[in-house]
Amino acid sequence: MGKLILVRHGKSFWNIKNIFTGWTDIDLAPKGVEEARIAGEIIRSQNITIDICFSSYLKRAIRTASIILDYANLMHIDFLKSWKLNERNYGAWQGRNKDEVKEDVGEDLFWAIRRGYSTPPPSLSTDDERHPKFDYRHHNLSKGDLPVGESLEQTKQRAVQYFFEAIVPELVKGKTVLVSAHGNSIRALMGHIENIVPKEYPKVEVHTGVLNVYEFDNAMKLKDKYSLTQESLVAI
Amino acid sequence: MGKLILVRHGKSFWNIKNIFTGWTDIDLAPKGVEEARIAGEIIRSQNITIDICFSSYLKRAIRTASIILDYANLMHIDFLKSWKLNERNYGAWQGRNKDEVKEDVGEDLFWAIRRGYSTPPPSLSTDDERHPKFDYRHHNLSKGDLPVGESLEQTKQRAVQYFFEAIVPELVKGKTVLVSAHGNSIRALMGHIENIVPKEYPKVEVHTGVLNVYEFDNAMKLKDKYSLTQESLVAI
Repeated sequence: MGKLILVRHGKSFWNIKNIFTGWTDIDLAPKGVEEARIAGEIIRSQNITIDICFSSYLKRAIRTASIILDYANLMHIDFLKSWKLNERNYGAWQGRNKDEVKEDVGEDLFWAIRRGYSTPPPSLSTDDERHPKFDYRHHNLSKGDLPVGESLEQTKQRAVQYFFEAIVPELVKGKTVLVSAHGNSIRALMGHIENIVPKEYPKVEVHTGVLNVYEFDNAMKLKDKYSLTQESLVAI
Repeated sequence: MGKLILVRHGKSFWNIKNIFTGWTDIDLAPKGVEEARIAGEIIRSQNITIDICFSSYLKRAIRTASIILDYANLMHIDFLKSWKLNERNYGAWQGRNKDEVKEDVGEDLFWAIRRGYSTPPPSLSTDDERHPKFDYRHHNLSKGDLPVGESLEQTKQRAVQYFFEAIVPELVKGKTVLVSAHGNSIRALMGHIENIVPKEYPKVEVHTGVLNVYEFDNAMKLKDKYSLTQESLVAI
């Protein structure tokens, strides 16, 4: 039976500063390192054997997974990355304080973009230094594929595409898969797996460092879902 | 043009203690972490873009690669692991002090096993707790495939097999490949690539943390080889 473990990276320096991060490559804060360590210890204490790991291109998700695998004593598994698991591209809002943005654009538009489904943030202009075309990590991608400000719906399209392209083939083989990603890319995957309708997305809470487990049969029918939390951590 | 970078992991706690390590999963010593950091800074300062990374199943090689990629700002690349890049399995010598072993078996046999080509160390017995069949990382392998004491020649067979199976397909696509492995698995790969005859192997020195670069054309003809050392590190 395939088992999928979704984890949102531990807290980054910009999570703590209340800044929209998106594709900005901000590292884990010490609190986030600690969250990842605890997640790794939970996996180890539960004797869970993960077979393969996936993450986004962003170091806060990569480091979260690396720390988890280290503390779970599972460093030896293959670790694949894709931009399609990246956080939502927050466009021109990236790097801005969330409260200041709210004041600028008003409560309604702020929440429509931040927690709604189809409304994208203002796009990055083509000469903006934050445009992903300037990032060496995307040198293999055609510029037309690179997002410059995404709605949750757009984030979901590429995350779910990657889910079927890379993750499902492992799950149907019965593998246990760890995916370390971001608030919105995890929310998108959860929404897809749990058949959540667009208007219900604002209620999907994704906490940092929590191991969200989904069990499937070999025809990808969802059998069970639960979280592994620190309460499940026995002395190790 | 494909580029292969071979690196032997930084110094581990047992390297420093002069103990035969083999498949024992000993971590990097602080000195080894430092060697990996420097290697990563060299890659970054030279603007080398690595496309994919391979290592053994052993944490001293995995951590070396992770630290290199972190400091090279290349954490986002895929990172695959195989037991076929593991250190030579040192059989019953694993965990023993090198000088004590030399005293026990005499200089001739000691050097024949340690630096020769075809002589294996004494094997692990099937009930020895160090036998790889007891290691959860090998649960997918048939027991017959698991080495219990290898000559350099035997180490070379599986390392070169992996080279053709996983690494060469990337090189002929023109990719730059980092391989983080061990004294004997790196020596085996170098020996294969450089067409070294068995009696010359004792002279192949593989220093920890050194980036050994091999450049190939798309028909896998060796075009150039050199090392990137700290002297090539410009201010970053």
